[in-house]
Amino acid sequence: MTTDARAATGAPDPRTAQPSGGTRPVLLGQNQYGKAETRVVRITRDGETHHIKDLNVSVALSGAMEDAHYRGSNAHVLPTDTAKNTVFAFAKEHGVESAEQFAIHLARHFVTSQEAIHRARIRVEEYGWDRIEIARPAEGGPGTDGTADGRTGTADGPTGTADGQAGAAGADGTAPAPHSFVRGGRETRTTQVTFDGDTWEVVSGLRDLVVMNSTDSEFHGYAKDRYTTLAETYDRILATRVTGCWRFGWHGGEQPAPAWDESYQETRRHLLGAFAQTYSLSLQQTLYRMGERIIDHRPEIDEVRFSLPNRHHFLVDLEPFGLGNDNEVYFAADRPFGLIEGTVLRAGREARIPADLTHP
Amino acid sequence: MTTDARAATGAPDPRTAQPSGGTRPVLLGQNQYGKAETRVVRITRDGETHHIKDLNVSVALSGAMEDAHYRGSNAHVLPTDTAKNTVFAFAKEHGVESAEQFAIHLARHFVTSQEAIHRARIRVEEYGWDRIEIARPAEGGPGTDGTADGRTGTADGPTGTADGQAGAAGADGTAPAPHSFVRGGRETRTTQVTFDGDTWEVVSGLRDLVVMNSTDSEFHGYAKDRYTTLAETYDRILATRVTGCWRFGWHGGEQPAPAWDESYQETRRHLLGAFAQTYSLSLQQTLYRMGERIIDHRPEIDEVRFSLPNRHHFLVDLEPFGLGNDNEVYFAADRPFGLIEGTVLRAGREARIPADLTHP
Amino acid sequence: MTTDARAATGAPDPRTAQPSGGTRPVLLGQNQYGKAETRVVRITRDGETHHIKDLNVSVALSGAMEDAHYRGSNAHVLPTDTAKNTVFAFAKEHGVESAEQFAIHLARHFVTSQEAIHRARIRVEEYGWDRIEIARPAEGGPGTDGTADGRTGTADGPTGTADGQAGAAGADGTAPAPHSFVRGGRETRTTQVTFDGDTWEVVSGLRDLVVMNSTDSEFHGYAKDRYTTLAETYDRILATRVTGCWRFGWHGGEQPAPAWDESYQETRRHLLGAFAQTYSLSLQQTLYRMGERIIDHRPEIDEVRFSLPNRHHFLVDLEPFGLGNDNEVYFAADRPFGLIEGTVLRAGREARIPADLTHP
Amino acid sequence: MTTDARAATGAPDPRTAQPSGGTRPVLLGQNQYGKAETRVVRITRDGETHHIKDLNVSVALSGAMEDAHYRGSNAHVLPTDTAKNTVFAFAKEHGVESAEQFAIHLARHFVTSQEAIHRARIRVEEYGWDRIEIARPAEGGPGTDGTADGRTGTADGPTGTADGQAGAAGADGTAPAPHSFVRGGRETRTTQVTFDGDTWEVVSGLRDLVVMNSTDSEFHGYAKDRYTTLAETYDRILATRVTGCWRFGWHGGEQPAPAWDESYQETRRHLLGAFAQTYSLSLQQTLYRMGERIIDHRPEIDEVRFSLPNRHHFLVDLEPFGLGNDNEVYFAADRPFGLIEGTVLRAGREARIPADLTHP
Repeated sequence: MTTDARAATGAPDPRTAQPSGGTRPVLLGQNQYGKAETRVVRITRDGETHHIKDLNVSVALSGAMEDAHYRGSNAHVLPTDTAKNTVFAFAKEHGVESAEQFAIHLARHFVTSQEAIHRARIRVEEYGWDRIEIARPAEGGPGTDGTADGRTGTADGPTGTADGQAGAAGADGTAPAPHSFVRGGRETRTTQVTFDGDTWEVVSGLRDLVVMNSTDSEFHGYAKDRYTTLAETYDRILATRVTGCWRFGWHGGEQPAPAWDESYQETRRHLLGAFAQTYSLSLQQTLYRMGERIIDHRPEIDEVRFSLPNRHHFLVDLEPFGLGNDNEVYFAADRPFGLIEGTVLRAGREARIPADLTHP
Repeated sequence: MTTDARAATGAPDPRTAQPSGGTRPVLLGQNQYGKAETRVVRITRDGETHHIKDLNVSVALSGAMEDAHYRGSNAHVLPTDTAKNTVFAFAKEHGVESAEQFAIHLARHFVTSQEAIHRARIRVEEYGWDRIEIARPAEGGPGTDGTADGRTGTADGPTGTADGQAGAAGADGTAPAPHSFVRGGRETRTTQVTFDGDTWEVVSGLRDLVVMNSTDSEFHGYAKDRYTTLAETYDRILATRVTGCWRFGWHGGEQPAPAWDESYQETRRHLLGAFAQTYSLSLQQTLYRMGERIIDHRPEIDEVRFSLPNRHHFLVDLEPFGLGNDNEVYFAADRPFGLIEGTVLRAGREARIPADLTHP
Repeated sequence: MTTDARAATGAPDPRTAQPSGGTRPVLLGQNQYGKAETRVVRITRDGETHHIKDLNVSVALSGAMEDAHYRGSNAHVLPTDTAKNTVFAFAKEHGVESAEQFAIHLARHFVTSQEAIHRARIRVEEYGWDRIEIARPAEGGPGTDGTADGRTGTADGPTGTADGQAGAAGADGTAPAPHSFVRGGRETRTTQVTFDGDTWEVVSGLRDLVVMNSTDSEFHGYAKDRYTTLAETYDRILATRVTGCWRFGWHGGEQPAPAWDESYQETRRHLLGAFAQTYSLSLQQTLYRMGERIIDHRPEIDEVRFSLPNRHHFLVDLEPFGLGNDNEVYFAADRPFGLIEGTVLRAGREARIPADLTHP
Repeated sequence: MTTDARAATGAPDPRTAQPSGGTRPVLLGQNQYGKAETRVVRITRDGETHHIKDLNVSVALSGAMEDAHYRGSNAHVLPTDTAKNTVFAFAKEHGVESAEQFAIHLARHFVTSQEAIHRARIRVEEYGWDRIEIARPAEGGPGTDGTADGRTGTADGPTGTADGQAGAAGADGTAPAPHSFVRGGRETRTTQVTFDGDTWEVVSGLRDLVVMNSTDSEFHGYAKDRYTTLAETYDRILATRVTGCWRFGWHGGEQPAPAWDESYQETRRHLLGAFAQTYSLSLQQTLYRMGERIIDHRPEIDEVRFSLPNRHHFLVDLEPFGLGNDNEVYFAADRPFGLIEGTVLRAGREARIPADLTHP
């Protein structure tokens, strides 16, 4: 209904309408709003060589929003469309050094530029890209079809040579393409940056990193009740899809910020190393080891939380077919699945990662 | 590695191995484990007429699990496989009166039967089924092909009559089938029951209820900054996919439990009514109205939290084609989307629903 | 690289570059292109009462596209962006009478307006919406909060009455809202319209209609080999997620077009009726009955194809817990699943629906 | 209803019931059935070093199935459960040399062992796994925590050293773990093997390989009509999610079978090389080049079909914010998307891959 239409009906302007009730029997609690999942891709050109950052950014803002909820007054509401625009503009103005640094720029901006906004929480998913391996420039030309007039994409000529070498992919015959990429499909890197105008909290992590140990896993000696039918095992597959997040000790101010990308790469390496090198008596033990390894080796991290679905691989009973199965053939089940969740903490630090952050 | 193999290598039994470090520099924090997504379907036969409950049950247990994490000792670990068995066994022993009641049975069992388990959190998703409308028994036979010997499924005969009546579906010519169902695809009903051996917390809700008002929604008068380009509007589509959950005041003990199913149906009705009947100046206002309506009318509920993605419907600019667009043609966008989240609380009650429960 | 940049490097204009090879050893085969998944929502206002059509439209065009593939010449390529624009413009110019009629308008347009386009295939998914039930205008006011000035969404007053009536939802106290909708989540309606400038083919259908018979299903007397372990059953749950499509005899010209919406509603009703009323000895038999019922009763349809995943519901063995299970407790499995696919055809007509249309 | 119950009611045995109608007015057309998505994981142990094959196998069988559909007679129906069992048993009996070879074993078995089965179509998805990089055995021990009693997973000691080397992941300090894996998340490898008892058809491929060229892509000179608003561009991002499949010339008999794995790796390499090295004037041109490169270099392949969604990356207009955008900041859109599909064929060979195989 347009303002005029409303005027015609003599209806009062909703913007000035009063909330229901006198002394309010119903109150607004924690609330936040913003634009979720703005998909921004930032290309940086270094001559022929391009670099790419591929992010999914979600902005959540909190503050003096009572009037918006009680009375529909938007005077304090910066549109979510503006949050989206800001993500794109900042990708240009600040570039994307790292997911964390980009989120810090955004969080600071909203809290410091809008009086009514007292807290900003920025979540970022980062998708990795690798360079496609192509025939060496020497043989294959400047990232295209090898010759100035090679743009028509003939597969003959220079590249033919390398092509002839069966299985030469990635071998000496090739080099990384300057501006051609293939998306790396393993984990998705994540970060959550929260700023209240005073202190910072950064919780980074990853999700959907699927790992498996095909042995060195046992499960026995567990509690039993009348509903227990599970057989004990001394050699099983242990597989999980890791969702993990880790909180940094950094809170801003004089404190130098961690080297975000190096921290991520190293934390991921410790996580994988601990998974691979733990002789596991339970997924709980493996979860703890992964967190412990990270806390032990990454001083910038105070707390780690994992959500580890136990992707059951059941040994198939082949006896009915007159066959044995010496840990050779497994059925990979979907549901139900065990779900092991836990926090691992540096002694003396407070746990702050909510239990539902890794698995709602 | 089998126990024998380990013995052969002189390796100590991992079950007795000591944790690393002396005074532990790394500690276990909040943790829980269990079986997620056990898909149980319970059929109750009342003669020819069957009733169905279709649940997805997730069990999360907490307690004295330090040894499991630090040392890989499973002495306190009831296998997640047992949790799955218990879900199935309880569906038989207790039936499924309601998602909440079923979860209460499960939570009580784990906490009271296992000394090491101090807290159980049961989550249930319930999928609704409706009866298929078929030709009336009088015309169509006893729920099958119309005649005692009609089981071969001929489409001729009795049912033909009704079939002849074009558009007769659901009209007088039909009746609900006794044991044939079609899954109702709207929202998924949810509940989370937590029991620590002393007090109960029940948070029920729904997700994926998609609603739209094609008018009676405005958005203007908002804050603006250098990144604001959004045009104000006095008539727009307001659409969202509701995820909501509401916490009951019931904590067990002498308190009589709410009528769970009636409470759900009524709460859902108020939620929809408030959405439809609120002339909206912002999704925040609509969110508050929905919560307020529930608190006002459902005394058993103390707190409501919603996560409302703003499913943007953009008016398409048809001018380049010499056409007008008087709120007729919209583009339904996927991403990015506004995301409005908030808690609505009964005055005097404490907010307990975590911010991340409705949208991680 | 810009044209100028290319000129600077003396690189030939790729648009004039020749394909590799002389007599071509590699040829272009069947090809099509277009814009997929344009999400258009069309609102029609009848005073206060609004009507909605919610479509997902995919356009695929074929024709004289050799130069586009061999030489990168786009002279014959109408941009996919234009296909998207056309969908929006046609929603305004022609409205959306039915998914089929809308697709017919689009297909005719592309083939008749672009000489190089010889064939158009339009696919449409339609999402259903139902009206939200609200308090009667008499009690609840004009589709808003009950009073001309009630836009502030008070939950007090008139609606309170109806609210008092527990379980009154949808009862006499309510009426359908004029412009508030809830998305019906059952099946998605589909259609595929193909036009080659001469003849028309329309294949409509649905997907994701989940149905279950909790009895009247047996499975026994099957072939057995050394890998067969399945036990025969004389009473099981039969459940499936129906994907089906049916080809109309209509080919355009003088032939009057079917009443698309009535045809859909009736075909769906026969499909459900046959599923519910067939005493089933196998899902294959049920599939045939469903198709037979449709062909028998809908003269406008010549061919039906179904893809029916057998959503296994396994009776849970509760014996280890000292419990019986008289067809009461089932485990709803995800994977693997049986998959039954088949075509049912009117005698004398040619089968034209590709095997992969219903399940790739 | 049990057989006895049926006897009691005097109901005829449905197994002997006659189909409806006399001379059948409704006929059964193409049909197939089987077990879909059997998830089998095969581990091969070579001492401490394990090898893994992770497959998702779908079996579809056709033959003399009229009675199953018309009369519910299962005499010719080998249960889908048996197909599942066969997949597991064959993983043991034949191992999994390659997805293609495994599918060939299965297809041959069903057609040659069951008289009523005249055709088998086996589809396999293969998920790739890579070895986790861990501290060198010399430092890190035999794939576990480095010492005989190291099973408790201490992160101190040997591995600490490597850990100290920031960014040493994958560098000299590490080696591939013998039985610890991380799932490679890029494309899913696929194959479809069809056998009719006489001749073989193998169509292999991949899906979900996401690639991007950040330049060397233009789009202009296209057809225009009244609905065209797209601006021409001489430098854009070209990105797609490749779904492709290629048909082998191999038909069995005396013909030696291709080296399936090498063929896959090389075909994939040519596909990526052609994408990266084609200066593109349209995605159609790129599609053709990718197919041409494969046909040119892989004599075992006669036909290639691609389905290439154009993952639009729109240059964001930053002018309203007083910023330029020299191909730096892009919005990655989801829907709608261009969809380019086409077949590339070796001259003289017949096209056999159905248009809907790559994109239903």
